[in-house]
Amino acid sequence: MQYPNGKKSSQIRNKGNVKQTVYSNRGMSLEKDINDTNQYYLSHNVAIIHKKPTPVQIVQVDYPKRSAAVIKEAYFKQASTTDYNGVYKGKYIDFEAKETKNKHSFPLHNIHQHQIDHMKQVIDHYGICFILIRFSVYQETYLFPAENLFKYWEQQFKNNGRKSLRYETVKKQGYIIPIRYQAKVDYLAVIDQYYMENGGTTDGR
Amino acid sequence: MQYPNGKKSSQIRNKGNVKQTVYSNRGMSLEKDINDTNQYYLSHNVAIIHKKPTPVQIVQVDYPKRSAAVIKEAYFKQASTTDYNGVYKGKYIDFEAKETKNKHSFPLHNIHQHQIDHMKQVIDHYGICFILIRFSVYQETYLFPAENLFKYWEQQFKNNGRKSLRYETVKKQGYIIPIRYQAKVDYLAVIDQYYMENGGTTDGR
Repeated sequence: MQYPNGKKSSQIRNKGNVKQTVYSNRGMSLEKDINDTNQYYLSHNVAIIHKKPTPVQIVQVDYPKRSAAVIKEAYFKQASTTDYNGVYKGKYIDFEAKETKNKHSFPLHNIHQHQIDHMKQVIDHYGICFILIRFSVYQETYLFPAENLFKYWEQQFKNNGRKSLRYETVKKQGYIIPIRYQAKVDYLAVIDQYYMENGGTTDGR
Repeated sequence: MQYPNGKKSSQIRNKGNVKQTVYSNRGMSLEKDINDTNQYYLSHNVAIIHKKPTPVQIVQVDYPKRSAAVIKEAYFKQASTTDYNGVYKGKYIDFEAKETKNKHSFPLHNIHQHQIDHMKQVIDHYGICFILIRFSVYQETYLFPAENLFKYWEQQFKNNGRKSLRYETVKKQGYIIPIRYQAKVDYLAVIDQYYMENGGTTDGR
């Protein structure tokens, strides 16, 4: 979407706080945009997608009289799945979202082996699975199907294997996500398109 | 499953720790059985179902040098969805699990309004949604379809409305879950049966 002054809508939308959201607070702007989008989907009865809570190992809890329990010691645990899942038209949807400041590639160390394992399982069970990759310098967000990701994931473990997805690869094998006023990362628009192009695999088989 | 001495397999399995799991540690034995079942489903490639992490509001985190970040102050948040979800044969599965010591009824205060709202949304979007109710004194666990729950939920707000589901209602409108050696709460067996009985609604429409 181009505006008369040649700026993309996302740049206009972020005017005034682009520095804060993209640089100081890396990762948060994509998460916020997705949460807003999911809230829009929910309130407009389009789909039910939620972010999973951050997994925490709780070690010590105080129960003060007359007030809420306080967790006094806890540690972050590594998630065993992706961050987002839910239901769209009866289908299971599952995805991870990552942001990079890089201009030319998306480093694969942003993803973990167990997340790849989980994605493979989801695909095996006919779920719809992908990662959302935002290149923050371009303010572009792509849906990259999990099916296309696995070979690049494996390649990195070979001799001199590339440890990242090239921007061009993401552009070619992914789908740019339209930015809408309320659904800032309207990934379901791409799901409709992507799965239609692939011969209606949204039917589950 | 009956053993020669007339005890149910679940009673035998719990021998020696039945007091601990059912009474002192209410709610944990069902959760553990479901987690074991989900692990079995996962490792045998039957379905991908995970428990969501407990939602926590993190207030203060310390970052000590050379060691892991420590959460020093956090609070439990109310979950906005049910506890379990995932994918089975391409379909979205979503459920809550609750245990009661009561003999004659399941108190509805075990469930919250926002969970009911979430269940309605899931049903609207052709997901498979239910609660698992364990009557610990009988060591019986039932799958109670969300569709059957809503009217009892609403009834409690009427004058002299019943605030619980009668055990007999759960028996009649729910499905007892078979106990298997590895899948201790084999709810997918009931899903196959229940949705077949209802004319193959596992097709999503």
